[in-house]
Amino acid sequence: MRYLIDFSYSGELFKGYQRQNGLRTVQEEIEKVLTSINNDVVKIFSAGRTDAKVNALHQKAHFDLNNKISCYKLKFALNSYLPDDIYINDVIMVDDKFHARYMVKSKTYEYKINVGHYNPIHRTHVYQYCKPLNIKLMKKAMHDFEGTHDFTSFCSAQDKRSDKVREIFKIDLCEKDDIISITFKAKGFLKYQVRSMVGTLIKIGEEKLKPDVITSLINEKDRKKAPFMAPANGLTLVDVKY
Amino acid sequence: MRYLIDFSYSGELFKGYQRQNGLRTVQEEIEKVLTSINNDVVKIFSAGRTDAKVNALHQKAHFDLNNKISCYKLKFALNSYLPDDIYINDVIMVDDKFHARYMVKSKTYEYKINVGHYNPIHRTHVYQYCKPLNIKLMKKAMHDFEGTHDFTSFCSAQDKRSDKVREIFKIDLCEKDDIISITFKAKGFLKYQVRSMVGTLIKIGEEKLKPDVITSLINEKDRKKAPFMAPANGLTLVDVKY
Repeated sequence: MRYLIDFSYSGELFKGYQRQNGLRTVQEEIEKVLTSINNDVVKIFSAGRTDAKVNALHQKAHFDLNNKISCYKLKFALNSYLPDDIYINDVIMVDDKFHARYMVKSKTYEYKINVGHYNPIHRTHVYQYCKPLNIKLMKKAMHDFEGTHDFTSFCSAQDKRSDKVREIFKIDLCEKDDIISITFKAKGFLKYQVRSMVGTLIKIGEEKLKPDVITSLINEKDRKKAPFMAPANGLTLVDVKY
Repeated sequence: MRYLIDFSYSGELFKGYQRQNGLRTVQEEIEKVLTSINNDVVKIFSAGRTDAKVNALHQKAHFDLNNKISCYKLKFALNSYLPDDIYINDVIMVDDKFHARYMVKSKTYEYKINVGHYNPIHRTHVYQYCKPLNIKLMKKAMHDFEGTHDFTSFCSAQDKRSDKVREIFKIDLCEKDDIISITFKAKGFLKYQVRSMVGTLIKIGEEKLKPDVITSLINEKDRKKAPFMAPANGLTLVDVKY
């Protein structure tokens, strides 16, 4: 039986999403509980990894169990045994051909920046930038990321995929109570892509780069050119759609 | 020289506000840094203690230093040496007769309750109640706490002060995106008073107690009568006024 889970986690106390021998990761914690429920090794396949310290509200993953268990019971069992920084929002049964990674239609990430006083209560999920930013300029510039581009300039050298072309469907920015929230929707992103795009938008908001810099950076296709990568803790995977 | 600081902290990783030998507390962390700046023992006097796991956005405290230091430099030095879960918002010089505890005019606490899905990202500062509540009934009932009452039924047995009469100036409740926020403004509160009042409001929201129960509980003056104390992590000291 194949199952799909929708789950959330706080990145703070994990060494990232992906299993790494001996380290506390989100994948490892969920697999441990599923393996014990299944009495046999279970591996989970997520919609995508998230970096260390990145949070998630609706991450998705599929896995197979030897025996059929009701979704309600499985959700209850998982949440009973998982630590309090991971939560299973939902469990559904899916077709044996369903794949949580290859069938993704869109992913939405949200990046939060505090431009007010440093807030220790929110430090785990909002980047404590704590200086003013010119939001008008950021809003004007950000749409240049939308559409289909080669994002070589905005990804990690560790991203070994040869095809760096991605399509950004939509970027939104809103500000409330000193918190700037920027959401990015795409079929998929390269490693560090969202944080690199945010870093560039911050430099534009600081008026250290001109709003039209994005198109030139994209055209340069040089990963050493993106000015700054925003820290991981401000980033949350908010949705994955199939 | 006497100074007044306005500071914030996340309660999560502290064993409460008040100094306790050998344990990590907010008071201890601030006194350690001030003592090192002053080259001589510094004790701080706060507007009031907060329980373990309770957060603060604008807590206040005064202390004396042997030498005059500019407020700007003192703020900078404190924030450079303090851990990232405490932050000094502001430092001002005050009269030698100023006392951060005895001169308080009002304190405001906010209690946050999540009535939606469990959210691991917010678990440190929002009570993850995760069931629906009848907000209409809670709103109707809460005003019975306002005014001057003997709050014996709504405080801890550990609160040894003989006078349990307090005046609640104002209670507000608002709901947004599955988060109920209840704010309480008073000159001062008894130990566990806000959490006891919230616990009773939750029971009213669950329709397990009638909205008119508050006045009868107050009249009973029996600390064993308050039905339930809401957990500390949902509580934040949001302001102190002089």
